[in-house]
Amino acid sequence: MELLVCVTCRQGAPVDDAAPRAGAVLLDALSALDWPGDVTLRPVECLSNCSAGCTVVLRGAGRWSYVYGNLGPDQVATVAEGAALYRAAPDGVVPWRARPEHFRKNCIARIPPPEAPR
Amino acid sequence: MELLVCVTCRQGAPVDDAAPRAGAVLLDALSALDWPGDVTLRPVECLSNCSAGCTVVLRGAGRWSYVYGNLGPDQVATVAEGAALYRAAPDGVVPWRARPEHFRKNCIARIPPPEAPR
Repeated sequence: MELLVCVTCRQGAPVDDAAPRAGAVLLDALSALDWPGDVTLRPVECLSNCSAGCTVVLRGAGRWSYVYGNLGPDQVATVAEGAALYRAAPDGVVPWRARPEHFRKNCIARIPPPEAPR
Repeated sequence: MELLVCVTCRQGAPVDDAAPRAGAVLLDALSALDWPGDVTLRPVECLSNCSAGCTVVLRGAGRWSYVYGNLGPDQVATVAEGAALYRAAPDGVVPWRARPEHFRKNCIARIPPPEAPR
């Protein structure tokens, strides 16, 4: 499975080329964790959720993809907990009540897995 | 390519089991159009963009997926125009200025295509 992180996210802050982007800070912090071998962290240039960033996507082959937003660059534990639950769900669907509180309140969208050709 | 439509969307209206869902009305109206053979319309039970529905997703193999929201069940022409532009873009990326105005203002999120295994 993959954890995509929007690294161009400024969390609505003015452009400041000297300061690191909030999304890049979040990815750096997540990268410092010890992830299972089947989890790939991937930076993305704009997930187009700019009004509600920082933003991550959880996805994987045969799974629903989930977009979560309104994350701060310090919410590493929240993302890690949500990713672990997602990883444990074969179809990627974690029951709403089982998700971290921030994920319950800040699910931006979800997309079903592709269907097998008919 | 696929056009996914959230058919459980109530557009924030109270539950009324006797009335058709706004998202289902949108799908029905879209289904009445004459689509190219490589476009598949697909109903989805909740795209989890409930606070900003109705919601559609444009996606396809090797393409970026785009989620658009805040659609009314009558915005068939907007969705059709946006879908045609998406279909014409090999990677699914339609320049922001070329999109229908509603799509410019109501892009909920986008997700990159899976990368080839490294």
